[in-house]
This record gives sequence, C-alpha cells and structure tokens, in this order.
Amino acid sequence: MKLREGVVGATGYVGEEILRALSRHGQIDITSVTAIIDKPSIFSELFPAFKGIIDLMCTNLDVGEVAKKTDVVFLALPHTVSMQYAPLFLKAGKKVIDLSADYRLDADVYTYWYKHDHVDQGNLKAAVYGLPELNRGQIKDASLIANPGCYPTATILAALPAVKRDIVGGPIIADAKSGVTGAGRKAAIPLCFGEVDENLKAYKIGEHQHMPEMMSILGKASGKKVDVIFTPHLIPMRRGILSTVYIPLKETLSETDVRGIYNDFYKSARFVRVHKQGVFPEIKDVLNTNFCDLGIKVCGKLLIVVSCIDNLLKGAAGQAIQNMNIMYGFKEDEGLR
Amino acid sequence: MKLREGVVGATGYVGEEILRALSRHGQIDITSVTAIIDKPSIFSELFPAFKGIIDLMCTNLDVGEVAKKTDVVFLALPHTVSMQYAPLFLKAGKKVIDLSADYRLDADVYTYWYKHDHVDQGNLKAAVYGLPELNRGQIKDASLIANPGCYPTATILAALPAVKRDIVGGPIIADAKSGVTGAGRKAAIPLCFGEVDENLKAYKIGEHQHMPEMMSILGKASGKKVDVIFTPHLIPMRRGILSTVYIPLKETLSETDVRGIYNDFYKSARFVRVHKQGVFPEIKDVLNTNFCDLGIKVCGKLLIVVSCIDNLLKGAAGQAIQNMNIMYGFKEDEGLR
Amino acid sequence: MKLREGVVGATGYVGEEILRALSRHGQIDITSVTAIIDKPSIFSELFPAFKGIIDLMCTNLDVGEVAKKTDVVFLALPHTVSMQYAPLFLKAGKKVIDLSADYRLDADVYTYWYKHDHVDQGNLKAAVYGLPELNRGQIKDASLIANPGCYPTATILAALPAVKRDIVGGPIIADAKSGVTGAGRKAAIPLCFGEVDENLKAYKIGEHQHMPEMMSILGKASGKKVDVIFTPHLIPMRRGILSTVYIPLKETLSETDVRGIYNDFYKSARFVRVHKQGVFPEIKDVLNTNFCDLGIKVCGKLLIVVSCIDNLLKGAAGQAIQNMNIMYGFKEDEGLR
Amino acid sequence: MKLREGVVGATGYVGEEILRALSRHGQIDITSVTAIIDKPSIFSELFPAFKGIIDLMCTNLDVGEVAKKTDVVFLALPHTVSMQYAPLFLKAGKKVIDLSADYRLDADVYTYWYKHDHVDQGNLKAAVYGLPELNRGQIKDASLIANPGCYPTATILAALPAVKRDIVGGPIIADAKSGVTGAGRKAAIPLCFGEVDENLKAYKIGEHQHMPEMMSILGKASGKKVDVIFTPHLIPMRRGILSTVYIPLKETLSETDVRGIYNDFYKSARFVRVHKQGVFPEIKDVLNTNFCDLGIKVCGKLLIVVSCIDNLLKGAAGQAIQNMNIMYGFKEDEGLR
Repeated sequence: MKLREGVVGATGYVGEEILRALSRHGQIDITSVTAIIDKPSIFSELFPAFKGIIDLMCTNLDVGEVAKKTDVVFLALPHTVSMQYAPLFLKAGKKVIDLSADYRLDADVYTYWYKHDHVDQGNLKAAVYGLPELNRGQIKDASLIANPGCYPTATILAALPAVKRDIVGGPIIADAKSGVTGAGRKAAIPLCFGEVDENLKAYKIGEHQHMPEMMSILGKASGKKVDVIFTPHLIPMRRGILSTVYIPLKETLSETDVRGIYNDFYKSARFVRVHKQGVFPEIKDVLNTNFCDLGIKVCGKLLIVVSCIDNLLKGAAGQAIQNMNIMYGFKEDEGLR
Repeated sequence: MKLREGVVGATGYVGEEILRALSRHGQIDITSVTAIIDKPSIFSELFPAFKGIIDLMCTNLDVGEVAKKTDVVFLALPHTVSMQYAPLFLKAGKKVIDLSADYRLDADVYTYWYKHDHVDQGNLKAAVYGLPELNRGQIKDASLIANPGCYPTATILAALPAVKRDIVGGPIIADAKSGVTGAGRKAAIPLCFGEVDENLKAYKIGEHQHMPEMMSILGKASGKKVDVIFTPHLIPMRRGILSTVYIPLKETLSETDVRGIYNDFYKSARFVRVHKQGVFPEIKDVLNTNFCDLGIKVCGKLLIVVSCIDNLLKGAAGQAIQNMNIMYGFKEDEGLR
Repeated sequence: MKLREGVVGATGYVGEEILRALSRHGQIDITSVTAIIDKPSIFSELFPAFKGIIDLMCTNLDVGEVAKKTDVVFLALPHTVSMQYAPLFLKAGKKVIDLSADYRLDADVYTYWYKHDHVDQGNLKAAVYGLPELNRGQIKDASLIANPGCYPTATILAALPAVKRDIVGGPIIADAKSGVTGAGRKAAIPLCFGEVDENLKAYKIGEHQHMPEMMSILGKASGKKVDVIFTPHLIPMRRGILSTVYIPLKETLSETDVRGIYNDFYKSARFVRVHKQGVFPEIKDVLNTNFCDLGIKVCGKLLIVVSCIDNLLKGAAGQAIQNMNIMYGFKEDEGLR
Repeated sequence: MKLREGVVGATGYVGEEILRALSRHGQIDITSVTAIIDKPSIFSELFPAFKGIIDLMCTNLDVGEVAKKTDVVFLALPHTVSMQYAPLFLKAGKKVIDLSADYRLDADVYTYWYKHDHVDQGNLKAAVYGLPELNRGQIKDASLIANPGCYPTATILAALPAVKRDIVGGPIIADAKSGVTGAGRKAAIPLCFGEVDENLKAYKIGEHQHMPEMMSILGKASGKKVDVIFTPHLIPMRRGILSTVYIPLKETLSETDVRGIYNDFYKSARFVRVHKQGVFPEIKDVLNTNFCDLGIKVCGKLLIVVSCIDNLLKGAAGQAIQNMNIMYGFKEDEGLR
C-alpha cells in the first residue's frame, strides 16, 4: 500500500512543486490537495499544467478531512499560520513536514524576528531541522520536520564544512541573489514584471529574517557563535538562488586543502556536488533539480564559496520530498530525478 | 511665461512617463503632481529615479487645487474614473488630455464594452481622438483630447493608409504582442514576474475592449464598416507593442505599390517611419521613443504590416505630449527627442 | 537487456534535452555521446548540470564507433549534415531518428527551400514523418524517422483536425511566437541577450523554411492543397512556442461543434490536451513537458486555435523519444513524465 | 561654430550610446561615424532606431579622414586596439576620449593583467583618469582621457569617500552584478539569451581585470595601498551594474556619521546621489541616466555601500560625454538629461 500524502497550501509556488514531485513519485498517493481558498476547484483547472496529471479537487483546508485521508502532510503555508495547524495534525498521529519558518528557530529568536509569539513551543522542541546533510539521523525518526529556508539552505551548505572543521576566523558575509518566486505567489507591486525585469536591488540588508536561521543552525552545528552578515538581492529570474559566501579563514589554507575538506564532508551527500578547481556553479546547472552545487576559491585568507540551488526544490519542495524519503526509507532521490 | 502642467494619476506607468517627458520639455512648468493616494509624499521618494528632478509633493487629487495651478491637465486615470473628473477641469476652463478610454467611443459602444454608463456625454461629443496622423487639424483646436489606446495606436497606424485608400477586401486580423506595463502598475498575480517570465499567452481573444476602438476609428476614417479580429498576447518584456496586421487586399497589388501608398500617407508624419523592402521593425528600434515603425510585406492577396511602438510613449504618454505640442504650437517633438 | 542509445550532436540544445530524457528512461542505456567537436571532453564537464548523471566522454563523431555501440541513433545535427550520416547508420542496420529537416520534405521542395541538393533520396522515400498523432502506425515499423520541426509541430497539431475533417475554407494564417532556443545553441549576435531581451521581432515573413513543411504535411494528410501563411516571431524567452492559427471555416460552425471535432480527433493522443471553452494554453503549462495544449475560439467564420508546446520537447527531443517509445513498444511517456 | 565629434567603434553598445547622447547634445556636430567593418553602410540601416536621426555613412576607420573632420574623437574600441590609434589622433592635434582600458593603468600592471605590452607609454603618462568626482580639475585640461571601466566606476564611487577620509580598516569586498551588455556586442555562446536568461553566475572571481583598476585608483586617491577582492556576477538583464561593497571600518562609526561623510564628499557632484537612511538604490532608478546612486548601511564595524549605475552611461558613454562637457566648459549634463 502506498503512502498517502496531503499538501496544504497547494496553490503557492512551493505547494505546486511538491505536487509536481509527488506526481512522479512511485511510492505515494496524493490523496488530499488543500489551500486556504474561497471555493473548491479542480486543481488542474487552477493550474492547467496538471491537466490529466492531478485532477483532484483542491478544497479549503479542513484538518479533520485531511487527517482522515493522509499519513504525511506537507504544510506550505505562510509563517505564523503553520503553527496553528501543525499541532492538530501531529495530535492526529500524522507526520508533518512544515515548509514555513515556524519550527526553525528558538522561540525567543522567532518572536524577535517574526514579530509574533510562538504558540506551539511544545512541538517546537521536538522539531528536527530538515537539512539532511546535517541531521540525517534525526530526520529518520522525526514526526515534525522544520524544512529549511531557501537562503539558509544555499548559505549553510556553503559554510557548513568550514564551520564544522573550525577553520573560520571571523564574520561570514553572505551576498545572496534570488529569483522572484522566493517571495511566493502573491499580488504585490514590487513582484510585478514591470518592476522586476531589467532591475536589480538589495533589500533588508542585515535585517532579513533568514539571517538568524543561518546563525542559529551554523552555531548549533559548530558549538560556537557564528556571525553572518546577510545581504539578499532580488534578481530578474523566476527561480534559483546563488549565494556568494565570503568566509575569513582562521589560518592560511590552500584551495586544495579547503576543497579536500569540502569533498570529504559531502562525500556521501546525494544532492551536494563540489566542483573542481576553477569551476563555479551556475543557476542553470541546478534548475529543476534538488542539487546544491558548490564552487571554491581561496584569495589570501578569504575563502569564497559560491553555492547554487533551485530555491523551490533544494530550497523548499525538493528538500521536503528528500526529507520524506529519508523518513520512510525510500530512495533518497525518488521523485527528484 | 511657461505653460503650467498638472498630471493626475502620477504614480502609474503612464503618469510617470508623462512626467519624465515633461521634465525635459523646454516650454512648460510642472506645477501639480497628484494621484489617488492615501498620504501625500514627495514624488521623488516614491520614485527615486526622479531624485533631484521632480521633488514636488504628490498629493491626493483635489480638483480645485489642481485647477488653480494649471493650464493643461493630463488625466492618467482608470477607465470610468476619468469621466468623473474631466468635466470639472473643462468647466474650470482647463484643457484636458485624457489617457483613459472614456472619450474614445460612442456612448453606446462604450457602455457595451466597458460595462458602465457614460456619464459625460456632452463632452464626449466634443472630444477629439488624439491620433495626430489622423486628426491633426482638430487636435489643434481641441479642449478635450481622447488619447488613443496602445493597441489601437499600433494597429490603426498599420491599417490606416490601406483603409483610407480603400484597398482592403475583408476582415483585418490584428495579432498583437504587448509588454507587461500595458496592463498598468497594479498588484495582480497574473502580472507577477514568476507568472510572466518564460511564459506567453493570448488573452481576451476577439473580446478585448480595444477592438471596438480600432473598428470605430478605422470605420470613421474610411466612411465604411471595417471588421477587425484582434488577438492580444502578453509577452515577457516590460514595454513595447508589436502588432502583426493581416489585411486582405481587394485587388492584387505589388509590395512596391503598397509601400508607395504608405510612404505617401505618412510623408509628413513626424513620428511614423516606413521601412524599405525587407526591413521589419523591432521593439528595440522604438523603445523609449515616440516613433511608430512600420514594415510591409505582400503575400499574394494578403498585405502584412508589422507595426512597433513603445506602449508607454507613442501608445500613451508620448502621444499625449505630442498632442499637447500640437495644441500649443510647440515643436511637435519637444520633450520627445 | 536494455536498448543501446547514441546521441549525435549532443552539445546543442536538442541533443542536451534528448540526453536529459534518456537519463530518466528506464529501458535504455546511453552508450554513445558524440558531437562535431575539436577535442573529446567528459560530457558533464561541458554541461555541469549532468555531473553525476552522464559522465561519459563526449567524442568527435566516428560513425563506425557509434554503430558498434548502439541500436538506435538520434541525429541532432544541422540541416544538410544529417543526410550525410543517416545512410551510414542505416546501412549498418541501426534505426535512425533524425531531428534535422533532411527527411521531412520531397526532394524538390527540400532543394528549393534549403538551397541544397538532396543527396540521400533513397532513404528519403522510406522515411516516416514522426508526428505520432498523424502517423502512429507507420512510426512503429520505421527505420528512419524524420522528426518534425518545432513550428510545424505546434501549427500542424492546431490545424490537423480541421484539415482532416475538411472544414477549412481558405488560406490558414499561422502567427507563431518562439523562444530563442529554437535557433539552436550558436554564437550569433542576433541571439545575444543584449539584442533579444526587451525586444521582439517578426522575421522571414512568408519565407520561413518551416512553411513548406506545414503545407506539405497538412496537404498530404487531407489529400488537397493547403495554403499556409506563416509569420514567426522571436520572443524574449528561452523555450516554448505559441502558435496562433487563424483558420477560415468553409461553413459556419459553432465553437462546440469545432471543439467536438478536436476532442474526438485527439481522444487517444497521450500528449495533446484540448482545453474547454474559454481556456487558452500558456507556455508555462507545457514547459519541460511533451504536451501540446490547444485552445479553441470561433469568431464568425474564423476559427482561431492557440497551440503551445515546449519547442525543445514536443518540438524536438521529446517527440523523438516519443517516437522511439512507439517504435520499440515502450510506454509512450517513458522518460517524458 | 559647433564642436565636431567623431566616434570610432560606433557599432558596439558603447559607441551606439555615445551617438545617442551626442544626437541630443546642443553644441556639437557628429561629423564622423566609423568602425572596423567590412563595408560602409548607412548607420541608420545598421541600427534602424537611428532612422531620421543619424543617417550618416558608417565607414571603416581611416585615421586621416577622421582627423580632418573632427575636433574630438571618442574611441570605443577593444583593449589593445585603442593604443594603436590614440597616438595618431593626438599627434594630429585632436583630443581623445578613450573608452578602453589602455590608458587606465601603469604600464607594468597593464601588461600583467591584459597580457600585452603597452605600446604607447608616452601618452599613458599624460592620460587623465576620467572620473569627474575625483579628477575634475585635470580633466578640464586633458588631451587624453582614460574613461573608467564600468565595474570600477560603480565600485570606486562607493568606496572613494571612505578611502579618502581614511576610515577603512581592511580589505574591501566588492560583490558586483552586471547586465549582459557589459561584455560588449559580440557573437559568443555564453552571451546568448538561451544561456543567460533564467541563469546567474559568478565569474573571474578575484581575477577580473577591473580589480587592479579599482585598487590602483583608490590607492592613488588615498596615498596608501587599498586591497579589493572583486567578484563579478552576470545577471539576466541588459543594462546596469549594482555593486554591493563591503568596507571594514577602522573604528566604529554610526550610519549617520558615514552618511555625513558621503553627503559632504559628493555635495557638488552633478551625477552622484546619496540616498537617505533605509533607502537603497535599484537599477531602474539609474537606467538610461548618467547617475550613480548610493545607499549606505552600517552593521557593526562593517560599512555596506550599495552602488548603482547604468553600465553603458555612467559606466561608459555617459561618463565620456560628461568628461567632454567638462573639457569644453559645456553644461555638465548637456546631452545627458
């Protein structure tokens, strides 16, 4: 019998990509497609790309109904909304993979950055940060996965080996560039084509809510405080994040040494690819895939790591599927090839 | 003393372009910048491109205030809103250049297509359709200009010589492609970068509200009914319209004959350029200009005219300035070079 | 034992997409990757997207070597080059799926449009035009497939039911819009981002080499001459073709009648989806898929069909895989889900 | 009598923009349009945007002919080519504004980075680096202007006040993002739309030839060595550079202090605009203008300056015109409004 999946928040970019991956997954059935919408509609009429593929009704979220039909629930909901629903599904014995920020940070840090009390601190403690390259073992046994943010995924994977091997000698600067879908599917003038195309901007410099996620996860991974200065930029492309991460080295290391550390760290990672000398990743190499590609350069005592992901896949939906595959012992790339 | 100008609806794409052109115009003063907004703001803080150029306060529209400060008013307002304000400015003795559709169609046609009664039929009768290549003489003496729509400008200029010289033998098909700013600056998911980029669609096929404008103007120009089938498409670019216009010829004509007709018709038009054999216009040739470029091809008894404009200039703001220049005897290209 | 596949011309956009699809195909082995290149390179070093996926050497084409290793050969070569190699592979007993135009047209028509004699007229006669919706039966038994062009695929599928059911009453106008990859991966200024972005143009109006392909196939399908006037446009997007096809009806038919004809014609087509009333396809619905989506509108005696495909998939590589699947009795969508 | 201008290299993006600006300039005549081309053509037939604006013949470069007709020559030629022609024009008593890198660096640095001996070291010594915000006085009297590179303009203007006021405490990191026209108009696969759109990459990390230009100019301006680590990125947009410049402060300074320094430094700069707190520049604010807009943020002891220019204007053609205006005592923004 196949695993029964439900997607909550199916009409956003991330929900759509989860459904796309699930529709190719050999060991699951999509049994529930919901969103916070006015009137139920056939999913493939909302998104004609799915005509003949997912012709289920997309209904307004009803927790009891969804719980009846599913074993695992993907929550692709806005921040602060997820933590209202996750406890209900957990109480009903379902596994939850939450794609919001609600279970990624300690409660006080969360409250500071998201300007909202955390209303589900019990489950917060048990949640596992779903970055397989860091927490594979815990993911296997988790009931609640806090799926990482897109910028943090790209940036943490770029810095993690350096941080874990303790070669970092100062604050890390992450200069990240993201496609527009990172902001979600929503009606907002700054996301309109007329504003974005042939344009480029930095925003929330040193103030983006993903910065504490990077610091918190890298800090916990290394057991010491890690400073990150984070500058996100909005790029006229649909998908993809490229994060250029500047890491001051504690001591001089050759590029070969550093590459050795990275290759070793990721040697069994299914979805991280470390490029050889002189090769740097481009968005197009990872587009529509779950890969994170890394390129490495050492300039004096500065390590520069360029990291690329598809923000909707390794940065959201793909990583969620990867986590599910790990939780259930499926092939790690099932639905993600 | 310079002419005093006011722009109403300054925060839309068209309002912004009117202001850009006016700021380069040697014979006018911008004395009033208004919009329908919540709180007054310095215009250059809303649009930092204008820092040091237009640092006036942009206030909420107050007809009396605007009338006091201006000689001419540009109304860059949504359809059905313009006709509430135009009569007030006209009554106050101001000249009005209206960029909405409110004064372009006969009242009954307007009501049918815009689903709204026409509430200013008195002024409607006196309004002059502001296409200088057709109505130069009347524009000079007009108090109220109905500035043409973007699709109609591109398409009418492509068909006008053929229609006027009576060489058309059947329904005209206008297959038009527009950049996204044609839909205005507004928060709407279908206009978002994530929906528009790497995408392309036809919409309102045979049902677009600019179709009756084409038929009405071409019909009046020629004194007989002109059928137009109009298919607009949304293109992943910011600005520009390319209209590919298929015109069945009544009798066989050589390309040279047709080109002769077009060259002759537009010989004194400042802003229409007819290309020679084998050359077809591209959007980039007219971008940021007030030109309409035309390319001509004859295939058997079918005349194909390719027409390009910048939708925000010759298709809106630029044509409005051109009309003002004609009304006041300024050089026709003042502010538009 | 799996079928052994070779791709010739692997470094173009089409070759790359064939390899992408083959890498997901459960019943084949990729045994040969070649191109006309200076020095052999690991394919995944040329295209890092394939790192860990296709790490084979990409070598310069050597027909004998390729023939030894393969059962089927995909030729993704320029026009006039394919017909030099196809006969060699056929003689060696291999099946050939040719993606060039070399086997799509009668020799005299080919010579006229491609300005080159046809040097393999023997095989030309036996070649099957690989449009499954038209020639499924013959494809099954073919040794040489002439894979259709991208514009013809979109346009023929839009017109085929109308032509076959004999409801067409005059010349068909196909106004098609294509993404830039349709021109292939080649160093040419008109394909550069700086020339294409924020631009749009018509080209080869009534003179494009895909026009005779449309006329020839539609003519053979219906047993009578079919006139097509074809205007291609270059759109600032990477992939996708939208063809707006204007078909004069012989007699008045309701939209419901026409939709009935189309639904019936394509009822067993795995990759053609006919939309219901008021719904028109967009490029994003078919991107990265092998679907052709159709929308239907009737305006008086004019039938307008909007047709969308991914030019590199249903318009090239995907259709080639589909043809292979039919030839070998694999599931028609294997590698194409 | 008007100043007579010649543009050498008129068919590149920069040459085209110089001509666009000159065609709006009230005090000059364009008397010579040349390039290194095969056959002479009417410039407006090469670039139909100029139809009716510049209909001069564009001829192959003949130094004697050009010298006869001009007072000032703009050289928009590739690196290493300029220094073959500049001395000939200087010898003929013409003023030269060179847009290549040939006169920007000391000979040894030039040779190291451009892999080519400097063949005109005599004039190199007399050349003035044409950044008006730094060298206004010398520009006035110069015969040979070395017009700055695009990346250096954006980055130097971001760092110059900090460097001059000696508040910098370590190596500067410049993470710059450029539109595609920065690479020039040339046939190269990596510049093609199919490769660039929906893509993003870093390139020449720590190895770009503009890095020594930044270090050299900032070093000379401050009288001490300035380290710059420079990472350029290619962005899917036509025009514009955004440089995010990370400047370690020697001592803690408030954002207000730093903003004061910048405002003071640029108080009489016609084309530099410093934004107030919380406002950061976007490409669209400077597109088609000669402005450099700056935004300032202080995070602890790190100063972050975001700098935006139009790479073809303030980064090349516009700055060249600005230099000419200064040399001849014209209004500094003539032709640049």
